[in-house]
Order: sequence, then structure tokens, then C-alpha cells
Amino acid sequence: MQKLLNASRRNRSLLCVGLDPDPALMPGVPVGEFNRRIVESTCDLVCAYKPNLAFYEAMGKDGLIALQHTLESIPVDIPTIADGKRADIGNTSRMYARALFENMGVDAATVNPYLGSDALEPFLEYSEKGVFVLCRTSNPGSSDFQSLECTGPTGTAPLYMAVARKALQWNIRGNVGLVVGATHPEELQRVRAECPSLPLLIPGIGAQGGDLEDTVRYGVDSRGEMAIIVSSRQILYASRGAHFADAARQAAMRLRDRINGLLAVPGNGE
Amino acid sequence: MQKLLNASRRNRSLLCVGLDPDPALMPGVPVGEFNRRIVESTCDLVCAYKPNLAFYEAMGKDGLIALQHTLESIPVDIPTIADGKRADIGNTSRMYARALFENMGVDAATVNPYLGSDALEPFLEYSEKGVFVLCRTSNPGSSDFQSLECTGPTGTAPLYMAVARKALQWNIRGNVGLVVGATHPEELQRVRAECPSLPLLIPGIGAQGGDLEDTVRYGVDSRGEMAIIVSSRQILYASRGAHFADAARQAAMRLRDRINGLLAVPGNGE
Repeated sequence: MQKLLNASRRNRSLLCVGLDPDPALMPGVPVGEFNRRIVESTCDLVCAYKPNLAFYEAMGKDGLIALQHTLESIPVDIPTIADGKRADIGNTSRMYARALFENMGVDAATVNPYLGSDALEPFLEYSEKGVFVLCRTSNPGSSDFQSLECTGPTGTAPLYMAVARKALQWNIRGNVGLVVGATHPEELQRVRAECPSLPLLIPGIGAQGGDLEDTVRYGVDSRGEMAIIVSSRQILYASRGAHFADAARQAAMRLRDRINGLLAVPGNGE
Repeated sequence: MQKLLNASRRNRSLLCVGLDPDPALMPGVPVGEFNRRIVESTCDLVCAYKPNLAFYEAMGKDGLIALQHTLESIPVDIPTIADGKRADIGNTSRMYARALFENMGVDAATVNPYLGSDALEPFLEYSEKGVFVLCRTSNPGSSDFQSLECTGPTGTAPLYMAVARKALQWNIRGNVGLVVGATHPEELQRVRAECPSLPLLIPGIGAQGGDLEDTVRYGVDSRGEMAIIVSSRQILYASRGAHFADAARQAAMRLRDRINGLLAVPGNGE
């Protein structure tokens, strides 16, 4: 979390670039090379990088090699978030945590809360690593279960709020964050009110339609920090031409500066 | 699902061997070789094999190669269930589904329902592949959220029952199953009553303490079928000696026959 804050302050950025390489949208460059050039051209503009594991797994072994090269190309002072949304029973989650935090060596991972506390504990035990728990996801179907009003020992609340409250309990080592989609600004506001100091990983601006102004207003903490605003396609595929890395840099700079402009609006963070 | 029924009837077996290779518990044999010998010695005794992806991912690239060799060693008429508990927003779930169903070529996969319908749709669209949705998992922490009483458009029920009801709606192609842990016999009974014809994938006997008699009684459909009872450690690690494969065969045969003996008890299936 300190590494995140440091990178965010040094680069004056709440922007996280999602490294989701889709060969159908990419210029004709190998994936590892594509990512390396994206990283080189944006690494002074971001607070984190978030490779989405599915995109690499869909390419088989070559994808895993490309992912390893990608991670090696990211400067050590920029945090990496492996977006795999994993979780399983305890002895199995331990294997996932080892794969991500030890073999792959990322700084943080996304996890799915459906299986409950003991499924997340093997991730949480890595006190130097960040664990971002899915809370209110950005997709349309997220209402199927996450919005259901749930009654438990601590009263009645939508399921995503029950998850947010549990996350506070899981945060004894200070390494827990939440994933809340930009497509649900009211829920984002409610989660931020409940969890004033947790880092929030916020996908869903851009292609998915989340509003950037609401995202900044409701996502940041009281100091205008601790929101990690994800953009993937808008930056990676800003151009399919030979100058794709320059185009990505311009897109990243515009988005970072728009976010910073919104931060300066009274009432939004500091 | 027909492949599952055929294998189950041919081998007179509701037993699924979980292929979760843990080098710390294995005899000194490479993983691919270990699994191949386990498969050779048990493939006339099972209705399915279930490799748990975490165990392979924890071994890096070598693990993925071992997994591919393992899958190739499984006879084509025995279904394979990739246990990865994946799910993400639609365009990402499509990548996971491709990785599992096309590249890896498995017959079925486990998925996590927390993200809702559109996250599972890319899996469900493969109408020839089985999709097992986590419902009530076998671990102690599963009560954290799965047991919460949820109020939605169709009334009030525990979250796992809301998932079971959604699974019935998702089953338009006849390829949906549910994961229900043997450690929760009452919930297993309730899910089976709600979903009389869905296949239920049931982990949690053995090391996790689920009762086999309850599992058989409440897990099977009215014909004594459609329960897939998972055992991993009890079979894989029946012996750490040179004869581990024979020991695994004996353990698998005992368990299959115990299950079949319980099926013959009046009131348990046929």
C-alpha cells in the first residue's frame, strides 16, 4: 500500500493501466513486446499496472511467458496487480497465492469473496502484498447477487456492503482493498463512506460507460488519494498503427490530467 | 452431461477423482507421470476426473505442461472437469472459457457466481461443455456470505439458494450443474429438492469431514444418478511408496463400492 501511495504521489496519478492484450485489437507486434512498449511510454503517468490473467491464459504457454516478460518490464517502484479474481478452499487458495505472489511476483491480486474468510486468508497472510476483494463489480449482471438485501448478524444490507464490512475485519494487516465498478456511482459512494481509508480499485470507465467525474468524486479518500482508476482498451488501443505507444502515452496523459483536474474541484478529495 | 452419464453407468460409479498433485505429499515421481499412473489405475472406477488448476499454476510453466499431459492421459470417454472457479466481466470470461474449453480442451469447468449472469454466459454458450456453478462450498467460511438470508424479486432465501434458482434459469442449454459441499448435508438436500435433475459436483468427503452416507442420500437424483462425489487426497496419497498407483486403485474401488452400497439402501435413489 505504501508502494502504491509512493507511485501515485511521484507520478501525480490515480491512473492504473490495465494490461489486457487482445491480439484482435493489437497492432502486429508480439504481446510481450507490445506490453513492454506500453509500459515504457506510460510508466511516469500511472500509479499501478493491472494485467488481467485471462488474456494471457487464453494464449496458453506463450501467454504466460509474455506475462512474465511484461512483469519484468515494469519498474520495481510501480505496483503490479494480478487481476485473476481467484479464490478456493484454504489449501487451494494457498496454491493460488503462491502462484501469484511468489512465482509471478506481483504486488497485489484481485480475489472473489463468495467462498468466505478462510478462502481469502492464504492471500491475506502475505502482509506485504495487496488483496483487492470484489465488492460491486462493473458488469450489468453484478446486480443478480451483489444487490440482494442480505440479513446477517450485523443487520440488513446489500450483499456488496456485507462484503465491504467483512473487508474491514480482514484488514488487520493493512493490506486489503476493494473492487468497485465506476458504473455504480451510488454504490461507490456508499462503499467509500463505509471504508474511508481502504484503497478502491475502480474499473468501468471508458468502454463500460462509467462516469469519470462521479468516479473521482466518490472514489477518493479524504485526501484525494487511494482510488486506483483503471483504463485498459482506451489506452492500449488508442492507435493500431506503428506509433501505438506514443498514442497510448497521449491517451494516458489526457486521462491522468482529467482526473487531476477533477481532484482540484472543491469537494472532491483535498 | 451425456458423457458423464455414460461414464457413470459404464463404470457403475459416482466417484470423481480430484487430480490435485501436491509435491509435498507425493512419491518422488514427476507430476505428469504421477497423474498418468493414477489415471491408468482408476479409469474404470470413476465417472469423471477433476484437475484443480491452482495446483498446476503453483508449479509455473512446468505445471501447465504436466496438466496438458495429464489431460491427454485421460480416456476420451471419461469427462474432465477443470476446477478453476473462474468468472469475470463478459469479455474477460470469454478469454477464460476459451483457455479452458478450447486450448485445454476440458469437458467442463467450475465457475464462481458472484459477478452474475453475464459473467457466466461466455461459459454457458459452449453448449457441449458443462458449467458447474459454486453454490454451497465445503469450507468453513462458506457461511460468511452463502448463508445470508437474501431478499430479491423471488422472495427470501439464503444466498446459495438464490444461486441454485438462477442456475435453473441459466440451464436453457442443459449444461449447468452446481457445486455443493458434502460438509453441508441439509443444504445439499435443499438444493437437490430445488434442482431435481441438475448434476451436483460434491467435494468435501474425506479430509474435509463430509459424511458419505448423507452425501449419497441427499446428493443423487431420483434414479440414483447425477451426483459426482469427489475424492482427492484419500485416493492420490493412499500410499507414498512405489506402489502408490495400486494403493490408489484399492482406495478408489473401496470408495466406489461403498457409494454403490449406500445407493442400494431403500430411500437412496433407486
